[in-house]
Amino acid sequence: MTVNRQIVLARYVHGEPREEDFALVEGEVPEPGPGEFVVRNLYFSLEPAIRGWLEGKANYFEPIPLGGVVRAPTVGRVVRSRHPDYREGEIVFGLNRWEDYSLASDETILLEKLHPAPDLPLSYYVGPLGGSGTTAYIGLHEIGRIAPGQTVVVSAAAGATGGMAVQIARLRGCRVIGIVGSDEKARLVTEVFGASAAVNYKTCGDLTAAVRALAPEGVDVYYDNVGGPILDALLLAMKPLGRVVCCGMIADYNRSDDPHPIRNLWEVVSRQLTLQGFLLFTYHDQVPEAQRQLEEWIRSGEIRVREHLTRGIANTPKAFCELMRGVTMGKALVELDRPEED
Amino acid sequence: MTVNRQIVLARYVHGEPREEDFALVEGEVPEPGPGEFVVRNLYFSLEPAIRGWLEGKANYFEPIPLGGVVRAPTVGRVVRSRHPDYREGEIVFGLNRWEDYSLASDETILLEKLHPAPDLPLSYYVGPLGGSGTTAYIGLHEIGRIAPGQTVVVSAAAGATGGMAVQIARLRGCRVIGIVGSDEKARLVTEVFGASAAVNYKTCGDLTAAVRALAPEGVDVYYDNVGGPILDALLLAMKPLGRVVCCGMIADYNRSDDPHPIRNLWEVVSRQLTLQGFLLFTYHDQVPEAQRQLEEWIRSGEIRVREHLTRGIANTPKAFCELMRGVTMGKALVELDRPEED
Repeated sequence: MTVNRQIVLARYVHGEPREEDFALVEGEVPEPGPGEFVVRNLYFSLEPAIRGWLEGKANYFEPIPLGGVVRAPTVGRVVRSRHPDYREGEIVFGLNRWEDYSLASDETILLEKLHPAPDLPLSYYVGPLGGSGTTAYIGLHEIGRIAPGQTVVVSAAAGATGGMAVQIARLRGCRVIGIVGSDEKARLVTEVFGASAAVNYKTCGDLTAAVRALAPEGVDVYYDNVGGPILDALLLAMKPLGRVVCCGMIADYNRSDDPHPIRNLWEVVSRQLTLQGFLLFTYHDQVPEAQRQLEEWIRSGEIRVREHLTRGIANTPKAFCELMRGVTMGKALVELDRPEED
Repeated sequence: MTVNRQIVLARYVHGEPREEDFALVEGEVPEPGPGEFVVRNLYFSLEPAIRGWLEGKANYFEPIPLGGVVRAPTVGRVVRSRHPDYREGEIVFGLNRWEDYSLASDETILLEKLHPAPDLPLSYYVGPLGGSGTTAYIGLHEIGRIAPGQTVVVSAAAGATGGMAVQIARLRGCRVIGIVGSDEKARLVTEVFGASAAVNYKTCGDLTAAVRALAPEGVDVYYDNVGGPILDALLLAMKPLGRVVCCGMIADYNRSDDPHPIRNLWEVVSRQLTLQGFLLFTYHDQVPEAQRQLEEWIRSGEIRVREHLTRGIANTPKAFCELMRGVTMGKALVELDRPEED
């Protein structure tokens, strides 16, 4: 434990991120002060939300500065602690950074002591049992207020959060339609995740018509991960009094200076829709219950997990760039290579 | 009671409505069948929502056909009845039509037997005590969930619904900022309706900056009557977890084929906003309570009423066209001229 490898932001990202936007540097292993502890990161979460922090502009978080270590949810082991509640060897989830060793404290966003199920892979706690799964769970229940018999549409349905949303909605007795960007993803969503149908928005022609054909009575809940033209098309397919769970807007993350125009917002009045955005940390107190239910479903096989796992910290930028090009399926994550000294 | 003068749709409206889009015809006085009754209309409500029914395209209601009488809320007196609960001489509110005599029944949308306060003008029941006032009341409470101390922004704040929303929010202990399109309207909103401030969007420059200057902590509730660029600007001035009450989108009513693009919808996720549309008929059961409170406030002088009253059925199209050009202030309505035989 002498070197702390870190992925830093080498230049602000414009458009699609490229590997050269990042750099691998060697930093100091942090020393915990009073109330702090050091986490040896084991898994990094790769997720589209990170893209929003790479432009030097504030969104709901401060931007990552040039030369700053990239912020991301991780799962890791406490290796040194001056915090009374966190002891060496314990496993934690939190919004840390892409580095071997992160300094954590009560200030760490999304911080959570894990009690990993011995019969489930630890990596699941960065995705299906971590932010992706709990976001889908809380979004569908708390924001979408899903009920049995409803028709639920999920976009980016082959992705980490979307794939979980499809399965959770199905297990709650909803009829689920997934929106995806390839036929391979469509198969994953229907055959593995159990959606009733999937629509490839790149080949279906008029997306509103395609969804209407599958849901002639209208969509009760649209779990939206993408925003942009897909959201615009779905507004025309909603049922009166329907709800749109605004989880993310991937369609604009690589073009935040020129977001897609939305033209069908009149439907919000005309159909009496509710569009509601949310961020996981606001609902942090609901995470343990979500996690408990998700563990049960994964253990029983009712939820199936698809991971896109990359090994080695040095491959993190490449894996993240692939995620943002939409070429991965399932939960994108990095498993850290463990230096000998650890 | 021999002739039923009616304003019909002479041609579908494109863009700004013109007087020639309408025609005055003489139709039959309706005969009530079982369960029906005839209303002698006394006041027509003129409101932007009507614009949406004049294009031959369905929105939340069927479009008015060519040659069809224009649908509108009215206040009138029952003059003939075969309905057990409605007797001659009683006063009713309902979504009737621009005509001397309307046929009503339990199917009539928004139908409500009025018990007009003897000390208040009957005309108020078509505006401040009718759809405009109750829409503002229910929108602020049920959809906006306003609370004392909050900052509330209202657009079209000099209009029928906006003017009521400004005053209701003020009376609930909110700080109110009105958005208007002229300095004269700004004076009405601050000096008569009691808003803390008003912004003329046509002259203020950057509307987001102007609102932020007045509400540096952000806007808790935006009561939106206009949609379009004003909504887009307000999205950037909302407080996290803020709520947008989507009551109408006047900005697009004269250009429904080419609605203004909305580009800041990312703020819905980033600020965890809720945008919720609503239509009065969905909350019909809450109308009596709203009306009771509004009567009390109007009687005490805490709410001040501004009417833009036009006399004579023949002047209805002209008055409606003026409303849709944004040149009127307060509640636009028509008082019917009463034929001798009535």
